[in-house]
Amino acid sequence: MPEKVDFLFTGGAVVAMNEQFDVYTNGAVAVRGDSIVAVGEAEKIAAAYTAAETIDCAGQVVMPGLVNAHTHIPMSLLRGLNDDLRLDVWLGYLMPLEREFVTPDFVKLGSRLACAEMIRSGVTSFADMYYFEEAIAEETAAIGMRALLGQTILIFPTPDAPTYEDGLILCRRFIEKWNGHELIQPAVSPHAWYTATPELLRACADLARAFDVPIHTHIGETGFELDSCREQHHMPTVSWNAKNGVLDTKLLAAHCVHIDKGEMFALKKAGAGVAHCPTSNLKLASGIAPVAEMLEVGLNVGVGTDGPASNNDLDMFEEMRLAALLAKTQNNDPTALPARQALEVATIRGAKAMHMGDITGSLEPGKRADITIVDMDGVHNQPHFHNHADAVYSRLVYASKSTDVAHVMCNGRFLMRDRSLLTVDESQAKADAAQVAAEIDAFVRERESSPYNKLILLSGVQRQESFEIQVKVPIADDASVLAAVAGDQLEIVKRSHYKQYDQYFMFDQHDQDAARLRYREDEFVNDAGEVFQARSRLTLIGEEDRHAFPNAVMLSRSRFLADADRTLRFYREYFAPQAEVEVNKDRRRWRVLYQGTDFAINLDKLTLPEIDGYFLEIKSRTWSRTDAARKADLMTELLALLGADPATAERKEYPVLALSNA
Amino acid sequence: MPEKVDFLFTGGAVVAMNEQFDVYTNGAVAVRGDSIVAVGEAEKIAAAYTAAETIDCAGQVVMPGLVNAHTHIPMSLLRGLNDDLRLDVWLGYLMPLEREFVTPDFVKLGSRLACAEMIRSGVTSFADMYYFEEAIAEETAAIGMRALLGQTILIFPTPDAPTYEDGLILCRRFIEKWNGHELIQPAVSPHAWYTATPELLRACADLARAFDVPIHTHIGETGFELDSCREQHHMPTVSWNAKNGVLDTKLLAAHCVHIDKGEMFALKKAGAGVAHCPTSNLKLASGIAPVAEMLEVGLNVGVGTDGPASNNDLDMFEEMRLAALLAKTQNNDPTALPARQALEVATIRGAKAMHMGDITGSLEPGKRADITIVDMDGVHNQPHFHNHADAVYSRLVYASKSTDVAHVMCNGRFLMRDRSLLTVDESQAKADAAQVAAEIDAFVRERESSPYNKLILLSGVQRQESFEIQVKVPIADDASVLAAVAGDQLEIVKRSHYKQYDQYFMFDQHDQDAARLRYREDEFVNDAGEVFQARSRLTLIGEEDRHAFPNAVMLSRSRFLADADRTLRFYREYFAPQAEVEVNKDRRRWRVLYQGTDFAINLDKLTLPEIDGYFLEIKSRTWSRTDAARKADLMTELLALLGADPATAERKEYPVLALSNA
Repeated sequence: MPEKVDFLFTGGAVVAMNEQFDVYTNGAVAVRGDSIVAVGEAEKIAAAYTAAETIDCAGQVVMPGLVNAHTHIPMSLLRGLNDDLRLDVWLGYLMPLEREFVTPDFVKLGSRLACAEMIRSGVTSFADMYYFEEAIAEETAAIGMRALLGQTILIFPTPDAPTYEDGLILCRRFIEKWNGHELIQPAVSPHAWYTATPELLRACADLARAFDVPIHTHIGETGFELDSCREQHHMPTVSWNAKNGVLDTKLLAAHCVHIDKGEMFALKKAGAGVAHCPTSNLKLASGIAPVAEMLEVGLNVGVGTDGPASNNDLDMFEEMRLAALLAKTQNNDPTALPARQALEVATIRGAKAMHMGDITGSLEPGKRADITIVDMDGVHNQPHFHNHADAVYSRLVYASKSTDVAHVMCNGRFLMRDRSLLTVDESQAKADAAQVAAEIDAFVRERESSPYNKLILLSGVQRQESFEIQVKVPIADDASVLAAVAGDQLEIVKRSHYKQYDQYFMFDQHDQDAARLRYREDEFVNDAGEVFQARSRLTLIGEEDRHAFPNAVMLSRSRFLADADRTLRFYREYFAPQAEVEVNKDRRRWRVLYQGTDFAINLDKLTLPEIDGYFLEIKSRTWSRTDAARKADLMTELLALLGADPATAERKEYPVLALSNA
Repeated sequence: MPEKVDFLFTGGAVVAMNEQFDVYTNGAVAVRGDSIVAVGEAEKIAAAYTAAETIDCAGQVVMPGLVNAHTHIPMSLLRGLNDDLRLDVWLGYLMPLEREFVTPDFVKLGSRLACAEMIRSGVTSFADMYYFEEAIAEETAAIGMRALLGQTILIFPTPDAPTYEDGLILCRRFIEKWNGHELIQPAVSPHAWYTATPELLRACADLARAFDVPIHTHIGETGFELDSCREQHHMPTVSWNAKNGVLDTKLLAAHCVHIDKGEMFALKKAGAGVAHCPTSNLKLASGIAPVAEMLEVGLNVGVGTDGPASNNDLDMFEEMRLAALLAKTQNNDPTALPARQALEVATIRGAKAMHMGDITGSLEPGKRADITIVDMDGVHNQPHFHNHADAVYSRLVYASKSTDVAHVMCNGRFLMRDRSLLTVDESQAKADAAQVAAEIDAFVRERESSPYNKLILLSGVQRQESFEIQVKVPIADDASVLAAVAGDQLEIVKRSHYKQYDQYFMFDQHDQDAARLRYREDEFVNDAGEVFQARSRLTLIGEEDRHAFPNAVMLSRSRFLADADRTLRFYREYFAPQAEVEVNKDRRRWRVLYQGTDFAINLDKLTLPEIDGYFLEIKSRTWSRTDAARKADLMTELLALLGADPATAERKEYPVLALSNA
């Protein structure tokens, strides 16, 4: 007596992607509830099961749903906004936009658009990392896709968290709410080690371990990142992550372009997964990840599209093909990453990389019914050869297109049938996206004439990687400061002496990123009073987002730096400021440790305009509000130690600037 | 009074790809007969023209038909037959197949299949190179696509020409018949310098110049090719082609992966075009062509898919995207080959590379109406930004899919409307292709157990790059030979002395490639009679395709060589021969010049089986039948000079082998 099931996919070539790589040329898959009950020859399955509904798959391939192992789906709403730019310039464009536009509604709409695209191209599972991940989870679960979703945490303010402490709280709540959901696996997503402090990485690792959830983070994406890590921490990126506890979790490491064999073994030992993102890495000129080598080491490598702002699509057929093609030239070996292995990384290995290999990624009894059915009759995929078993993998990897996908089922539920989406209102999503794009267009057009964008167009910027906490006090003479730095309460780390020639371009607009542009020439002076070196830099200084602490200690965020390799005259013409202010000064600077904490002390004598007395400035970098509050207290102590009166501290810049700004 | 035209495409974004890169967001294109009459703003065009038929292109892009600058379209019938193999192994598989299957009917069917695929993906023009190009021209013209078609010529026998002289005659007739056709531009296609002699290259260049038609050839595809050229000719590949007249023609050079800056300038000066084939070059592990550099030099670079047997599709959207992506990582610069330039190489620059830039590749009044209309409303291509002009190029290059193409017109004739092909019976072509594939499957299955395929599966082969012309004569003693080589009529180029231990595996089958497999150990003997070096090689020797000249001089073709890095015992088990014959001998060998012509003289003393007297063998390489005839005459003279009697010459191998073969 045949057993009853809900669905029977029969008559197509079943490509199981199980351990034996079974291919049933005339095969069938039986599904009951959310799971696969049987996989095998069509005749045998037909004899053993009767189905409520039978789907004829003649001329098609029945295979596991594809696994997109790394993406940022809400960025579908930023697709094609800016391409062919350097990474710094691209981030310079995107970050202010994200700050302006990214809300729970935005990420839901972006998720809707992206899920529609992914379902159309045969994807059933993906690993995401973005802001407001809670909203993404709601949308994804409603649409019915399987996902590893990481709430992003970094030391900069994000659209959903002003500080990383807030981000950690948000992430913990997200995990508590979603852990154990049948489709959604919450995860902790420190963005990357270079946007984290060791404390942040450790806090993320602790959180992940406490709930036994994965960490999804970026590792080794660019050569610059590797160089920075070596310079700052004297070790490569995987090692630094390991040192800070990240490898003691269920890790999914995105990119891994610039990692070495030792790091591969460390990842392998940690049971970590890697998400290879070939299109994104090529497009941003990051390089080509050593995938064949990783596979040789035995790592669970998946393939990801990365976000649609750096790809610009979510097409896993393209991605797996590109992975296969690149590996061959990279290894000077056309047998590298053959078709079957390419499909493997795009399915079961990707699922394993996401720590979901036990429930998805292959067609096996007991696994969830995550199934993609692909038409094989397109003229671009003719003819078919049958003289060896691997030909079907060749067809799928080297000739099939995402638009060949006919039906998609996830967790036993149809998400697409005959190319019609069943769980996303695609037309409405497209219309809503058009509306958001129009708003972004307007925003960008307005900014187009701003100093910020002009600076970006000119030379790109490096966002200064700090909150700066600072205080400025006028003092009558320098004796008390010089006595203090000669005393034993401060440990002097470095001392320097410059002449600074600043030209401030003032802009008559309320732009949080661009109130003033400073062109600064620094002349470095040696002990004999001679100039021995010079440099020129542009700094764009914003006005808003300042947080005041007692005694006029301020937290300022928005600063963009760029090397100034052109003349002042050029910049004057190019930026066309509303007003200009020139400030020259002699600056003595000490980097000190006070009670174990790092501060910079500047003692400035203004020479233009000539102002009697001095200005004493104390600065420090900080990463969080609680740390800022602690340093603000230390700064008040320091002011006293240096002989200044905290009551006279200024809330503004040099009076001359405050004046012209008014 | 508005002017009358046949077609008006209106309401879409018109991307002209003219010199000014005009984009009309709401544009129109007017077509009369085979040509474009006007391009501009929709309103202006509507006021100036009335059309017999107006095509509403709202929500679409109207752009020039894509240009596939290098392919071998009949190989669509071999798509996916063998992938992930080394080039030698791949060729080893394909060449016998082509010899068996490639006929005029085969290339017509393959062309039909490929044209259907190319039209579907928005291609209107392509550059081909294959056998029976005449049949390809007939099919292409009937389907209505524009093409540069090169009749392939090489020194090996091809499916359509037993010698290169025959190939040249075929090519001349092809040019005479088709030159001046409105769609077809015939061309001369020496396959590559390394499958040509200098005489062949010169003959091709002369033919191309005589008719003022282009040459379409492969240059600089692999590093091995470059190394070979440097070794053989002491110059890089472009220089060697230049030296033999190829750059004095309208040249289209495919691949150019391994060329340097000097060669780029040489190509530029010659007005040559380059076809960049990124997918094929990656897939065969050939490398990445320095496209950004070529464009900087000002070369007309197009993009090509290469043949569908090494790609495996003819999708120019994929190809132009890949070109853009690869250039960025290759140059460590994400601004390299931006979207607009990628579309340029896939259209107008490709047309210029094919020496067709005056009639196609852009939408301009006076040019032929080669037009592709692309849907832009797919969910994978949302949303659209309009804050800068280049966004439309980003959408086309980084997010559009070939399946977004809705209509295609070539030379004023619709080839596809609303995704329906109008000039190819696609279903019939697919059914016919399935039939051919079944025949190829049967052929391959039968060969699967052959020594030839076993050899290939084991280690690949290098096809011996020669016809060998040879004669063998038994002689009583060695005195006359030794006297002659000491004399002044022969210039000795090289002398050597080996002990040869041959094990012949005999196969009981009629296989033109595999009658005997020889396992040979060569021991090199110095003047003192000591062995100082050894090597082992496998040679698979065919029986057929021999051409006899007077005096038993023979022309033999089929020989495949492979290094033997395993034991004789292994090979015996692996190949399971029907019989074995062992032959040991002492060989003295002289490479000589006789009347300016290169010959090898072998003087063999058989030690197993022991045979009285010696065997004298004279060999020479040859590339054509007329050259072979000339050398056969010289060989007869040489036999006399060496004291042998031509009348005793053998038509067979050593008698012991002839015997066991019987």
